[in-house]
Formats: sequence, C-alpha cells, structure tokens
Amino acid sequence: MKGFGMFEVDKVGWLEHEKPTPGPNDAILRPLMVAPCSSDVHMSHGGSGPVTDMILGHESVGEVVEVGELVTQFKPGDICVVPCCTPHWGGYGTQERFANNAHDTGLMHSFKFLQFWDGVFAEYYKVNDADANLVLKPDQVSMEDCLMTTDMMSTGFYGAEMANIHYGDNVVVFGIGPVGLMAIAGAALAGAAHIIGIGTRPNCAALAREYGATEIVSYKDGDLVEQCKEITHDHIDSCIIAGGNTGSVIQALTMVKPNGTISNVNYWDASAIFQVPAPLLGLGMSDVTIRGGFCPGGGLRIAKLLNLIENDRVHPGKLLNYKYEGFDKIPEAFQVMDEKPRDLIKPCVKIYW
Amino acid sequence: MKGFGMFEVDKVGWLEHEKPTPGPNDAILRPLMVAPCSSDVHMSHGGSGPVTDMILGHESVGEVVEVGELVTQFKPGDICVVPCCTPHWGGYGTQERFANNAHDTGLMHSFKFLQFWDGVFAEYYKVNDADANLVLKPDQVSMEDCLMTTDMMSTGFYGAEMANIHYGDNVVVFGIGPVGLMAIAGAALAGAAHIIGIGTRPNCAALAREYGATEIVSYKDGDLVEQCKEITHDHIDSCIIAGGNTGSVIQALTMVKPNGTISNVNYWDASAIFQVPAPLLGLGMSDVTIRGGFCPGGGLRIAKLLNLIENDRVHPGKLLNYKYEGFDKIPEAFQVMDEKPRDLIKPCVKIYW
Amino acid sequence: MKGFGMFEVDKVGWLEHEKPTPGPNDAILRPLMVAPCSSDVHMSHGGSGPVTDMILGHESVGEVVEVGELVTQFKPGDICVVPCCTPHWGGYGTQERFANNAHDTGLMHSFKFLQFWDGVFAEYYKVNDADANLVLKPDQVSMEDCLMTTDMMSTGFYGAEMANIHYGDNVVVFGIGPVGLMAIAGAALAGAAHIIGIGTRPNCAALAREYGATEIVSYKDGDLVEQCKEITHDHIDSCIIAGGNTGSVIQALTMVKPNGTISNVNYWDASAIFQVPAPLLGLGMSDVTIRGGFCPGGGLRIAKLLNLIENDRVHPGKLLNYKYEGFDKIPEAFQVMDEKPRDLIKPCVKIYW
Amino acid sequence: MKGFGMFEVDKVGWLEHEKPTPGPNDAILRPLMVAPCSSDVHMSHGGSGPVTDMILGHESVGEVVEVGELVTQFKPGDICVVPCCTPHWGGYGTQERFANNAHDTGLMHSFKFLQFWDGVFAEYYKVNDADANLVLKPDQVSMEDCLMTTDMMSTGFYGAEMANIHYGDNVVVFGIGPVGLMAIAGAALAGAAHIIGIGTRPNCAALAREYGATEIVSYKDGDLVEQCKEITHDHIDSCIIAGGNTGSVIQALTMVKPNGTISNVNYWDASAIFQVPAPLLGLGMSDVTIRGGFCPGGGLRIAKLLNLIENDRVHPGKLLNYKYEGFDKIPEAFQVMDEKPRDLIKPCVKIYW
Repeated sequence: MKGFGMFEVDKVGWLEHEKPTPGPNDAILRPLMVAPCSSDVHMSHGGSGPVTDMILGHESVGEVVEVGELVTQFKPGDICVVPCCTPHWGGYGTQERFANNAHDTGLMHSFKFLQFWDGVFAEYYKVNDADANLVLKPDQVSMEDCLMTTDMMSTGFYGAEMANIHYGDNVVVFGIGPVGLMAIAGAALAGAAHIIGIGTRPNCAALAREYGATEIVSYKDGDLVEQCKEITHDHIDSCIIAGGNTGSVIQALTMVKPNGTISNVNYWDASAIFQVPAPLLGLGMSDVTIRGGFCPGGGLRIAKLLNLIENDRVHPGKLLNYKYEGFDKIPEAFQVMDEKPRDLIKPCVKIYW
Repeated sequence: MKGFGMFEVDKVGWLEHEKPTPGPNDAILRPLMVAPCSSDVHMSHGGSGPVTDMILGHESVGEVVEVGELVTQFKPGDICVVPCCTPHWGGYGTQERFANNAHDTGLMHSFKFLQFWDGVFAEYYKVNDADANLVLKPDQVSMEDCLMTTDMMSTGFYGAEMANIHYGDNVVVFGIGPVGLMAIAGAALAGAAHIIGIGTRPNCAALAREYGATEIVSYKDGDLVEQCKEITHDHIDSCIIAGGNTGSVIQALTMVKPNGTISNVNYWDASAIFQVPAPLLGLGMSDVTIRGGFCPGGGLRIAKLLNLIENDRVHPGKLLNYKYEGFDKIPEAFQVMDEKPRDLIKPCVKIYW
Repeated sequence: MKGFGMFEVDKVGWLEHEKPTPGPNDAILRPLMVAPCSSDVHMSHGGSGPVTDMILGHESVGEVVEVGELVTQFKPGDICVVPCCTPHWGGYGTQERFANNAHDTGLMHSFKFLQFWDGVFAEYYKVNDADANLVLKPDQVSMEDCLMTTDMMSTGFYGAEMANIHYGDNVVVFGIGPVGLMAIAGAALAGAAHIIGIGTRPNCAALAREYGATEIVSYKDGDLVEQCKEITHDHIDSCIIAGGNTGSVIQALTMVKPNGTISNVNYWDASAIFQVPAPLLGLGMSDVTIRGGFCPGGGLRIAKLLNLIENDRVHPGKLLNYKYEGFDKIPEAFQVMDEKPRDLIKPCVKIYW
Repeated sequence: MKGFGMFEVDKVGWLEHEKPTPGPNDAILRPLMVAPCSSDVHMSHGGSGPVTDMILGHESVGEVVEVGELVTQFKPGDICVVPCCTPHWGGYGTQERFANNAHDTGLMHSFKFLQFWDGVFAEYYKVNDADANLVLKPDQVSMEDCLMTTDMMSTGFYGAEMANIHYGDNVVVFGIGPVGLMAIAGAALAGAAHIIGIGTRPNCAALAREYGATEIVSYKDGDLVEQCKEITHDHIDSCIIAGGNTGSVIQALTMVKPNGTISNVNYWDASAIFQVPAPLLGLGMSDVTIRGGFCPGGGLRIAKLLNLIENDRVHPGKLLNYKYEGFDKIPEAFQVMDEKPRDLIKPCVKIYW
C-alpha cells in the first residue's frame, strides 16, 4: 500500500509498505480525514533522531476495514475518531496516575504511531487495543470537529487541566497556534477570568478571542511580562506554554504569582537547555507548580471531548483553515505545514475512496 | 435605627435597633442594594427555631460609613460587595479544609448575619474582619451583578465545585431557582457537556438555557430519572441538588452512575428525614461521593467571582427580575419572596440615601 | 474438576465443574493458599440473590498452569498473587476515575469471581487480563502476607484512602475485623494521629493496637459517640465504616466534625435502609464528604501493597489466626468463617498439589 | 532588652533593642527553648542581602508575657509553641491555595521573624495574630519535640506532602540533615515503601533509619542515580530535595520516573542557576510535577503535628543532639550551627528566667 512519510531525515515522499494486518485486539482503518501536525514536520527534519522509512501522520478520522478476533465494540464500516495517543491498556503501565506515560515502559510509550509503527497518512493503518482506543464518530459532530479532538483539543485541554484553574483565575497562554487556541478554549471551560493569549498572527488572534481569550499580547508592543502583569494587576495564577521557546518558560516563571502553576504542552527540541536562576523559583520557596505533560490517550477521553462538542461548548474544527481533498493531496498539506504561511492555522485533507 | 426583620416567628415588620458600632476589625455599612433570600423567609417562619427581634437580610452591596481602628484596606465612602458568609479569620477555624464551617467553633459559624447579629435590611449593618471580608465594587461591574455574587453565585458555583466536574461530564441540576441557575452557570464554566436543569417555570427554563443548560426536564413530562437517563444514555456523572425535596436526593442516587458525585447546596428543614435503601448506595460499593456544603465566604472568593463577571464569563444580575427602589420597599420585596409568584426569580431593592 | 461452593442458597459442598480454559488474555491457576471471606459466606446464605451452582472464594495466591496466547508477562510455574477484583482493562470502563466500578458496564463489574465465573476454591481457576491483573509473588514476602493483600489490605487501605486523611487527623474505624484492622494500618500509614478502633474482641483489639490504633472503644463501656468525642476533644476528622450496622453510619454522622469525611467499605445487605435526619447532615451544609467504595483491583495496586510489605511497613499476614492445610480443608475453613468463633480473625488454607 | 543577632553581614553578637510592645492582635513571649537554624546562619553571612541590626532566630517555645487587647485565646503565663511562619490571617492573602506565600503581598510574606521584625533569640519577641498562630504546649509533649515542630518537622513534612506520595511509592530524600530527616519521617507517615536517604554522616544515617529510611545512599559508593535506580528497579515515584546543591535537582530529574514528582524544600542561594537540558524533562512530555515550597505556618498546622507526637507517631526532638542551657549560650549554639561539626544534627538552647 501507499503512504506518505519519510525515507530518511529531510527526505519525504510516497512510501510503499505492506498493508498492516491486525493482531487480536487491533483494528485496521482507512483514513477519511487527516491533519498534518507540526510534530510530523519536526520528525521529518530529524527532531526525533535518525528515523527512516516511516509513514507519518497521527491525527485522523477513519473507517474500520478489519478487526482482530477479540474486538467486540467495532466492526468494518464503522466511522471512528482515532486518538493520536493509543495506550496499551493490558498491562500495569496505564493503571497509575497518567496513562499517557506508561509507568513501566517509558516516556510517551502510549504514543504508538510513528514510534512503534506507521502513521495514518496511508491507505491503511493499524490501531492497537481497538475496543479501548477507538470512538464511534457521532452523527451530529462534523468530521472537522472530530478530527481536531484527536490531538489539538486533547493536548490543549490537557494544558488547561495541568494548569489547575479555579473560578476567576487569570491565565496566560503562550502561543496561539492550534494547541494554544485549544488551551484557551480549555481555560475558558475551566472557569478562567482573564485569558491572555501571547502571539502576533491576526487570524489566530481573532480565533483566540472567539475561543475565550480576553486579551492578545504581542512582543511587538513591549515586554511580554510587563504587559501581562499590567492587565492582571500582577495576579497571574497560571501560565500554559503551548508555543514559543525556552525563553517563554523564563517569562512564565517571571510573571506567575507565588502559589501559581506553569503547565507545558510544548514539545521541546532535544538540544534545548533551560537556564533558570534560583530567584525565579523564589529560591525554591514560591510554591509554584511546574508540569509538562503529554496528550492523554484512549477512547473515553476523546468521547468526553466529543460530548463537549455535541453540546455546543466548543468547536475545534474552526482551527482548520487550509482544506484539501483527496489522498494525493497529503504531500501538499504536509508542505504547507512545513512552510507555515503566516495565515495558516491548521491544514487537513478529506479523503474519498 | 430602623431595620426590617422579625419580631418573632411569623411576625415581620420594622424594628428599631441601636445603630451598630464597629469593633477594631469591623466596618459599618449602609446598604445600597439588597436582595431577600428564601432563607430569610424560611427563618421568618421559624425554620431556624424561635428567633426573635432580629433584622433580616444577608445579600447586599453597601457603602462603608465607619471602620474600626485596625481596618487598613477600606475607608468611609468605599462601595463594597459584602459576602453573605463572613468568617472570623483570626483563629484556627479557617485554617483547614473549608473556611465556611469553622472547624473549632461549629457548623456554619462563618455565617454571622442573622445568627450572631443583625442582617443587612437596616440603615446600618456591621461586617466583621472587614479587611478580609469586604470587596471593593469594581467600576465596570453593575450593582446587580455584584449583589448576586454574595450568595446566589457563590452558593451555586460551590454546588458545581463540589460536583467535581471534568471536561465532558454530564450534570443534572435539581432546581432552576436562582441557586440552581447559578449552579448551571458554574457547571458550564467547569467544562460540563450535558447540563440538565430540572424545573417547570418557563422564565427560569429560558434563563437556564442562557446560562448553559442543554435540556430542561419537568416532572410533568414523565419520570425524572428516566428522562435524565435517556438524554445522557445513562451516563450521569454528577447531580447538584439546588432545590426540590428529600425525594430529589433519592432520585439523584438513582440516576447517578457508579463513581459519580452528588453535591448538595439545598438547606434542608430540620424535620426532614432521608430514607435511603442500601441498593441506592450500591450496597456501599458504588464509589459515589456525596457532599452537602455551605456557601464559602471571604473577600477573595467574591473577588474571584467578580473577576469572572468583569471578563464577561457570566452575568448573575440577570437573576433579578423583580426590582424595587427605596429602603421602604424592602417589606414589599420580602413579601414577594415569601409569596413566590410563578414568574419570580429573584427580587432586589435599590436604596438611595 | 472439584470446587467448593454453593449448590443453591444455604446449601454448600463440593461441586464438580469443567476445568476452565483460558481465553487469549486469561491465565489458569491452581490455588496455593486461599482464604474464605465473609462475603463468600454472605453469598452462600443468599446475600447476593438466588445464586446456584457457583464455586466460591476470591482471595488466593496461586500457580499459573496455563496462559492464553496473548499473555506475555506470565508463564506456567509462576507463583502469583491474585487480586480479588480483576477489571477488564480493554474497554472504556477503567479509563475514568475508579476502575473498580467500570463506568460503562456497571456496579462492581470489575469483580469477576462469583459474579461472572467460578471462584478460587477449585482445583483450577481463571483470571482475566492476566498481564494486567496478576502479580508475581516476591520471594521475600510470605505467602500469608501476599494472600492478605488481595482483598483485606486492598479494601481496608481503600477505606483509609477514601477517608482523605491528613497529618495529625483523628480517625475512628468502625469494626476491628480483618478489614477494619487493615483500615487502621492504612490510617496509620496515612498520617493519622488518634486512631480509635470500635470493637470488643480482645485479640482483635490487641492486633488493632499493633497496627496503629491508639484507643479501642467498646459499646460495653458506654455511648460510642460520647467516648470517641471525649478522646478527641470533639475533633474527629474522619470515620471509616468497616463493620457494624446501619446504626454505625448514624453514629459516624453524629460524631464527625463539619468538613470531615465518612468512608465506607462495608458491604450492606440489600434490605438495609438508612434513616438519616437532616440535622445529622448539618441540614445539608456541613461539608462532610460521604463515600462508600469497592476494593480497587488490578496488578499494580497489589504490587504497591506488596512493596509496603517488602519494606516492612505492615504485615497483613498477622490477620490469619486459623490456619488449615490441604485442599480438602476448605469446607472446614469456610465453616469457621460462617460460625465466627469469638477468637477468629481470619482463616486460611494452605494447599499442596 | 538583649538579643543575639547580626550587626551587619558577617558580624554577629549581642544587640540591645527596645522590648517589643504588642499590637491589638499580638503576643509578647519570652523564649524557653530556641534552636538556631541554618537559615539564621545563612542570613548572617549575607544570604538574604545586606541585613543589618537584626536579632536572629525563628524556632522557639516560649512563655506569653503580654497580649494585645484583642487576643482571647492566650494569656500571660501560657507556654506556647511558636510556628516559624506566622501569617497575617486578616486579609485576602491567606484565603487561597497556600497561606505560606500570601497571594496579595508576596513571596514568603508570612515569614515575619527576620524579615519584618526581630527574631526569637531575644529576651522578648513578638508574635502577630496570636490567636491564630500560637499553640498551647501540650503537657505530654516534651519541650524538645515541641520545638522541632516549629520549622524542621513542618518543613520536612511539607516536603513529603508536596511529593504526592501514595501507598507503596518509592521515595528518595536528598539530604539527611534535620529537614531531610523529617521529610523521611513524613514520607513514612504518608505510606511510602522504599525511602532512600542520600547522605554520608553516620549518626544522621542511623537516625534516618529510625525515622523510616530503608536505605542510605552515599556518593562515596558510586553514582547516586544508579544506586537509587538499582534499589527501586528504576521505579522512583518521588524525590524530595532537602539538601544538596543544584546538581541534586538534576539528579532527581534524571532518576524520577515519568509521572513522578519532585518536591523541594531547600532554600537556594540567590546566585544559584539551574541548567536543565530538555531531555531531563522528557522534552516537556514527562508529566513530572516539580514544586518547591515554603514551610506552612499557623497554629492549626502545628497543633496537628503535635497531635502526631502525642500519639507517638514520630518524635522530632531526637534531632536535637547538641543541647545548651542558658540564654547566654545562644551564641555558642549559633556558632556550632555555623561550623557544623560532622556529628551535629541540630542544636538547641534551654533557657531559664
């Protein structure tokens, strides 16, 4: 079968791989809609090391074409939303604290696509633990909204969850790309008062306001820390890092109040180094909580997010502003993600078979 | 000075009391806007025992006219929002868990008005621990919005907080009176998906939808439990009891899923008895959490709620649909609260001096 | 194969059933040590309805004799500790909140033995999701200690977990049978100060003190509520119900302070009815949290409990004070559990093949 | 009055200051037992900037000699335990999250001694908010045990609280000085299994084991990270930093598992800089929680810790292994703290008047 991926670092194109066959708990799907993600692009340029011969893509809605003999909840023909993070639920790894990072196997081991097997930019792709990881697409939810739950909304909302928001808190979101926009929407649905988005692109800023941002702050208008402190009278309860660079973490530490929270969902380059002077941590006494985490997986989480959409609380599909049609348009969508034109928020490809 | 209150059970009218004088940490205020509450009415009919000679009222925005010598944050002339629950912060009582029920003094001991001294339907009223309990009225927030934070919003949102809502949860709110309406708004700002309001009055139902209810269910249309289960495909994560009778608790126990939560903010009559068959508790094994609690107090909580209003997340002032003007209209507003005409949501009285 | 169980209500004996065969994720074990539980006895007398033809028993250490083709972590010959609660981890049911009560299947659906298939008082027994539910017996942990983690320690410690204990809290444990004793040990390891055990049997009282109880209170010495309040100067933070009757819940509600917690691990008879007057709930305002829950399952939990034992924090094997040897002694051990002689704490049977 | 303190950086001795007079909520005490702390020494060498003319000391048990007119719970003659951290409870600052860092005033503003007024190495010293901050010494608790709750136990136990320990977790404590030893005791009372203390001094190691450490690891025996991983089979749930240097944080990040917690109670020098490579944070995806915090204050916390001692859960007084008698021995005790002889754990001075 055909799939779009990387032959080697910095060399992408159509690969020809064997069609996957399902293990007893697996399902095989055909993609109906996919979205390239900046982490696909990052990987293609070597961000995850010298990967070779790997089909890319991890955001998809698909149609089940085959299931393993132990799968009972899904059958060929089912249209399913597929979480980007599909834990193996059959061991100890997911029984404690956070299932995304299996405790007995290792960091991000619940992220199967691209790490353990091919991704979703293929004619067929495999999903492990299908009964636990797949979600039936609700009729009332658009394909676009469904697709955006699989990573962008799940990750952005996780940023808001880790930020430990209480009613009336003031929250700063670093980055107003698709994950930052979803963190803004998540913060609004967690009871934040001020939600300040940090970014500069006009269409992202407009969508940020639609999702609940009360102010947009740009480095072009002065020091970010000062601007955020002024808006909130120096009461910033939480910062969510969903973009930027290592300096963003320093800025967050500088602006967040004692007792506050810093939540990170940004995937850092392996070469990044954080230099944190002790005073920014209140000499160790500030009671600021810092946590970075990976998008939680599993079907129930996605089902919960879809429930929010069905009840009109949020529509993540609005992120998609570059829409392509046809399996053969995947490279074009991927390229636009790589080039990031100034008005791009998130591209997708609708696929007909 | 004059104040509207109860001479004895079932006998209300204008009382003549001494103007209060401030202790070192107290402030004395004049009311600028007040709202009668069903608990004022309840007390007047003997619901809190044989109270005599007590000025009623505990929801107010007022103007500071005098402060004790230790008060540093407020001065005469300040327009303040006054929490209905004003804990004494200077002892152990508020240092653990929930400040509303002081741990070393007793149940609801943070509720000072009506229990320990006169209420706010008076020419002057006293607020203890002024620096900790008063909140400066923000210019941008309407008097009505401010007034509704003091009890209705704080209590309703507490119902939502105790309900332990996560993104995408389905929530049922028993009662769509003013507290229930605020519980609905609170549930929406906590990330609920379905929010089902139980009630029958049309204008409450309309406002419930505006605050975030997705469905309104009435006993007139059939069994409440069945209706709620059908809407949610039998997945009710939390119930918030903000009205109804002891049967509501039974219904909540019947409909909530194992692992769910029942939160109560309804003030029960001392004569009420709950008869709970063990199967409704899953024979003790259902992992359903049950908690009833009292409106948290203190200035910071109200400041946080005002911050939500300033950022346009919710406008509790919409509850006020019977508006009176003039100190002498307090009895009329009180009477309408007592008689509860079918279209009443919440009355208030604006006062000019 | 032979197994000891119930032909019908009130009729127990040796049944002859087919040896179970493993599904792909299952393991088949032979018991090496088992313990009858009061819930086995309860069921035999009809406490779970008109069950027929069911092999009893759910506490065991066993030897793997056969595994399904997808089991990778265990193999024939492995000596394993078997949780009494063995969730099916392959669906949505265990992905949210508490795995013990699967959210999409129903109350206690993670309790497989006795409900969905035969128990462990058999020559062979089946364990579902073996990789996720079995735990290798550590060499350094005695068979007795291992056996007592499977239900008694897991349940008792869950009682302490639900009791939300903080350093220096005062805790009352209703019942000093095996589960109550483990709740006492759990409360001590959660940082409780006073731990008052309620009970009368002398050997249980002695063991309670060994596990961390500071006082033992008996109804024979006066009113239980008064005694507990006196010891703690009326500061009881949490009550754990691990025995007694419906009156115990009333006593707990009477003694616990506002803001406190009541945790229940007692399995109530379906005919029990709780009659709770509203004042015992502070008229709905007391901020007391009430939760009853079922023993959590899964291998990781048991592995964690075994880790406590390996590090000498607690030795639950001391509960076993009636020890039998030989598969054919199961009926005798069961009978002693049924008759409950005054000095019985917990019986077990060591089995040789 | 006389007091031992610093004239300027690096110049300590007896100062002559005015006897403090109480404000309305204050108490004035005479010290009965005091302990120098490494932070007193740190300050004397300029660690908190160019402080001049300040009486040192913040750990004390004292006798009330005078109270302000609003103090109702204490009177002259009362023997009291005095928390080192004495928040001002009468404002918004202590109403949210963590009272130690007042949210509206600033970092560590609840630490009054040495920052806002003289410390306890004086003939008389002042305690603000006496009703909320003082604790009556229980007759059954030794002066030494009482003294050690005020900072060492409160801080060490806070390290364990922030470490988010669950039953059976493996915990590493960096540093086995007095705070580290208390973190070990706190971890044991929080249900940890392995508790590994990192340090080298033999008497501290012995006491660490008495308080619950299962292993002591020294850099002299090899790489610390490797040793800790080997002991726990690479399952370290939490690290508590209670000593060491910036490298300790790097080691903690290296050894803690994904989903784990790092808790810091070490007071860092203002010149310290943490250099953290992104891979140590799992590229931002590891779900490791990092928090450093300051000793919580207030009377209730100390009362809770005393309750643990009264019930024989722990005896922090064992830390005191250099004991002096007489007010005039304070300089000697201070000097020993400064010089830190190898066998020093913690010095104290008993004072007679």
